[in-house]
Amino acid sequence: MEIDFSNIKVIGFDADDTLWVNETYFREAEERFSELLEPYETKNKIDQELFKMEMKNLELYGYGVKGFMLSMIESAMELSNNEISQATILKLLDIGKEMISRPVEVLDDVVEVLEKLKGRYRLIVLTKGDLLDQERKLSRSNLSEYFHHVEVLSDKKEKNYSDLLQHLQISTKEFLMIGNSLKSDVLPLVNIGASAVHVPFHTTWKHEEVIAPKNKSGYISIQKLTDILAYL
Amino acid sequence: MEIDFSNIKVIGFDADDTLWVNETYFREAEERFSELLEPYETKNKIDQELFKMEMKNLELYGYGVKGFMLSMIESAMELSNNEISQATILKLLDIGKEMISRPVEVLDDVVEVLEKLKGRYRLIVLTKGDLLDQERKLSRSNLSEYFHHVEVLSDKKEKNYSDLLQHLQISTKEFLMIGNSLKSDVLPLVNIGASAVHVPFHTTWKHEEVIAPKNKSGYISIQKLTDILAYL
Repeated sequence: MEIDFSNIKVIGFDADDTLWVNETYFREAEERFSELLEPYETKNKIDQELFKMEMKNLELYGYGVKGFMLSMIESAMELSNNEISQATILKLLDIGKEMISRPVEVLDDVVEVLEKLKGRYRLIVLTKGDLLDQERKLSRSNLSEYFHHVEVLSDKKEKNYSDLLQHLQISTKEFLMIGNSLKSDVLPLVNIGASAVHVPFHTTWKHEEVIAPKNKSGYISIQKLTDILAYL
Repeated sequence: MEIDFSNIKVIGFDADDTLWVNETYFREAEERFSELLEPYETKNKIDQELFKMEMKNLELYGYGVKGFMLSMIESAMELSNNEISQATILKLLDIGKEMISRPVEVLDDVVEVLEKLKGRYRLIVLTKGDLLDQERKLSRSNLSEYFHHVEVLSDKKEKNYSDLLQHLQISTKEFLMIGNSLKSDVLPLVNIGASAVHVPFHTTWKHEEVIAPKNKSGYISIQKLTDILAYL
């Protein structure tokens, strides 16, 4: 199914790694984590075990930095057989606090694209993760003025999107989602009959990796965000 | 100003300690925290320092169990001069995980009141805290069917309420908020020209304590939730 862009009235933007840098900071934090745990295990094992711990805790903690901090602490305990020092645990808390406090780096092209779309479409931000953290990032990004609405979802599955479109009284035909994650920003939309645009970011969290379907239908992939202007 | 209940079309319910038990679990967790820290300080000092740590981290972490867990760990480090054992830190993680996983205890009268109001008013849940945690509690409470909409706010200040009422296209005159916190569920509403009903819970978090205004205006206090049925 081709996308009929002339039907589109509302555009949803993913935030992390679509509007601003995010995954890069998690990669840096993981790097620091593995340096701190180096006395106990190989880098490869440390990476694997931290990821496993995050996955084990995902249902309980959800997405976001605070859950990541708690998983780092628990994983450090496990990897070190509870021998990790108190000083190192404090360093793990600091890594997380720095992640929460850092300035927001808006990605290239974002302001240009939003400037061209504003007034012509209803623009909304659809992000998952921690509510306070995402509100704070939007405020620091200075992008708030472009958006009619911001919705932080606890997850980005088909049901989360259907419920939201219903609540905002948006029909699937008139909705286009733009984001970097095929798994979270593209495929669930296509599955509920809406359209999507995939703009890859150079770094993808392992949890967000998914095999692209063979028959690409209901979505397009573009190289950089400004490419969307050829369609809208 | 008296409340004109005949104007009310939409009723917002606070969730924690209005629909279900919450503060009690935090009190129990603090109790366990002070038992674990007993070797280092007096109970009074432990309570005070944990609260201070939560307040220090509130801007960074926001409300909810995950931030509380991180503050417990940091406070345990500080109270013990970094001597707290790794085993105790694991116990702190367990305390938090149990808080997140426990069943939801719906408060007395809630189902009776919601049964009587449903269909006659648009009912919404307005809560602050962790998004995933609050969605999970609502689902476990079996109260979802009564509500048209659930909104988790990062805070409950005047601006959060004004923005939300505007977004949901609800006028202040037709909105009534019901909740246990004078500070979060009552006074901000009165200040923006809406109405509120205060239903105290037996336990109030120190952070939520506030002096009641001398001239009670725009809100009423009731003893138990069913008392509201005399007005609606």
